[in-house]
Amino acid sequence: MKLDIKNGKVDMSHGSGGRAMAKLINELFIKHLNNTLLRQGNDSACFQIPEQATGSGRMVMATDAHVISPLFFPGGDIGSLAVHGTVNDIAMSGAKPLYLSASFILEEGFPLADLECIVISMAEAAETASVSIIAGDTKVVEQGKGDGVFISTTGIGVVPQGVNISGDKAQAGDAILISGSMGDHGIAILSKRENLDFETTIESDSAALNSLVADMVNAVPQIHCLRDPTRGGLATTLNELATQSKVGMQIKESNIPVNPQVTAACELLGLDPLYIANEGKLIAICAKADAENLLSVMRDHPLGKDAAIIGEVITDKHNLVQMETCFGGQRVVDWLVGEPLPRIC
Amino acid sequence: MKLDIKNGKVDMSHGSGGRAMAKLINELFIKHLNNTLLRQGNDSACFQIPEQATGSGRMVMATDAHVISPLFFPGGDIGSLAVHGTVNDIAMSGAKPLYLSASFILEEGFPLADLECIVISMAEAAETASVSIIAGDTKVVEQGKGDGVFISTTGIGVVPQGVNISGDKAQAGDAILISGSMGDHGIAILSKRENLDFETTIESDSAALNSLVADMVNAVPQIHCLRDPTRGGLATTLNELATQSKVGMQIKESNIPVNPQVTAACELLGLDPLYIANEGKLIAICAKADAENLLSVMRDHPLGKDAAIIGEVITDKHNLVQMETCFGGQRVVDWLVGEPLPRIC
Repeated sequence: MKLDIKNGKVDMSHGSGGRAMAKLINELFIKHLNNTLLRQGNDSACFQIPEQATGSGRMVMATDAHVISPLFFPGGDIGSLAVHGTVNDIAMSGAKPLYLSASFILEEGFPLADLECIVISMAEAAETASVSIIAGDTKVVEQGKGDGVFISTTGIGVVPQGVNISGDKAQAGDAILISGSMGDHGIAILSKRENLDFETTIESDSAALNSLVADMVNAVPQIHCLRDPTRGGLATTLNELATQSKVGMQIKESNIPVNPQVTAACELLGLDPLYIANEGKLIAICAKADAENLLSVMRDHPLGKDAAIIGEVITDKHNLVQMETCFGGQRVVDWLVGEPLPRIC
Repeated sequence: MKLDIKNGKVDMSHGSGGRAMAKLINELFIKHLNNTLLRQGNDSACFQIPEQATGSGRMVMATDAHVISPLFFPGGDIGSLAVHGTVNDIAMSGAKPLYLSASFILEEGFPLADLECIVISMAEAAETASVSIIAGDTKVVEQGKGDGVFISTTGIGVVPQGVNISGDKAQAGDAILISGSMGDHGIAILSKRENLDFETTIESDSAALNSLVADMVNAVPQIHCLRDPTRGGLATTLNELATQSKVGMQIKESNIPVNPQVTAACELLGLDPLYIANEGKLIAICAKADAENLLSVMRDHPLGKDAAIIGEVITDKHNLVQMETCFGGQRVVDWLVGEPLPRIC
């Protein structure tokens, strides 16, 4: 008997290791995430070390748990997000992502039809990002001990020769660039969660940034830092980089692109777009001499068309991020404190 | 102000990406899981491809979510289990595990002191298994949307040259070995969960099997299959291997070691030890000519001292696992159906 995906629900036996689990894995996960390595059917997936990797001799590994609520939102769902989140963490080292693993924690009673939508969305996101999901695991918890679906993804990638990108490499004088508008993801989630009705739907920017990064690294291999401003937003991520590199930063508010609907929503809700999570944007820091070249490469890519230079790295023993506001004032942009938007990713 | 580990509890801000999360990561996770690669402080960890890997050119990747309940049990806790589970999945390909990532889903209100115990236990398990946890992630969900702590770990390892172990390689005539007694983990969890009072505490067998596997692969590189009988127990895992290799199996009940307390508990509870999960045992399948040599290597290792040859692979187009019972009868040992022991790992 085949799995009843249309009307079925997750039950405890889907996590048992027995027949029901084997059926779920074969008829839902492997069916959609289909690739030779996943089909090996062992507890681990075996792959050849790619030739590029033997060049630099370096690989990267990154992991992210995804607990976003709601599971489906304008511009994506937990499945696509779980691919983008980890692909982007890999890409932020300048590496080419190769393989992902995915482990699912399902809540008893979750509709199999929704699970299938999520897995199809993962498969599509992985294909778009040119990565394969080669290993997986499924656990089931009782109703009330989870929240529908949690997905942890882990990725590995190879670092191209000559690329040495790290959060501790920003230097005074460097230029700070971002790839596009800030706050779209967080506000998309919030508006869906709170049923806020704006005139137009705000869509999450959730996207895999590895192809943008490949173009950037190809043009300017000596980029100093890359990081995606996810939880904590641009403000917190810049503070992380400033602390890690032991520098200060001076940015200019008027240079930071924010979509008008996001600005409006933030004003309504008393939120600051600089602290709102993004899932398809990146910060790049490079030598001033490389900045215009890098900017133009970014703008040539669909995911970087609104890229902008937003400021520069300065010497500051307090490692502060300071901003010239739109009104010409100067203020310190601190780390996020508290949690204005829980479970955003 | 330092994190109050003694009296503090996880709150939503520990998952925010802001200051509170940075503090939790630094003062608890990085403090205990301390290693250079983790301390890089980027969203991914960069490592050199080890020289052994350039020999065979093959690596493996495996992932496991851990949702065990209770979190602390005789013989381990979710922290050590999360290391053992993934190290063992890597080892079952004959590979040497190198690096792990760990992603945590914490429930709001969970005591930081308990979290620290779990992280210390992970660190100790990783050290014993000679692997480093090099990448991590922390998410927090609201009270009632999780269950204390869930941990997903992913591992990567390198396959030694000349080793080609896979679940589809069992051949008629091969010998089937197991490394020790069956059912200890599941019964340890169950007795803790149900507050069953046996005369002696039954301890989980949770352990990292990679050093045992290294000895085995060194002595008999041409081992055909290795697999750890976790969820679903020995019975289900043998069925998986039989299906994958398109063979049948004939085992002998009297050759399967089961601890007397486990036998007693199973009789009391109406459970079959062959379906109970193990977390520190493995099944090996090799050519009959290699079996005695492999057995003696296994018995020389502390984690294999009770190893036994339990049967042989046979030709069977129905891929059945059959057992000669202690009473001399013959029965089919089927896949696990249903879920007698949820959340065992």
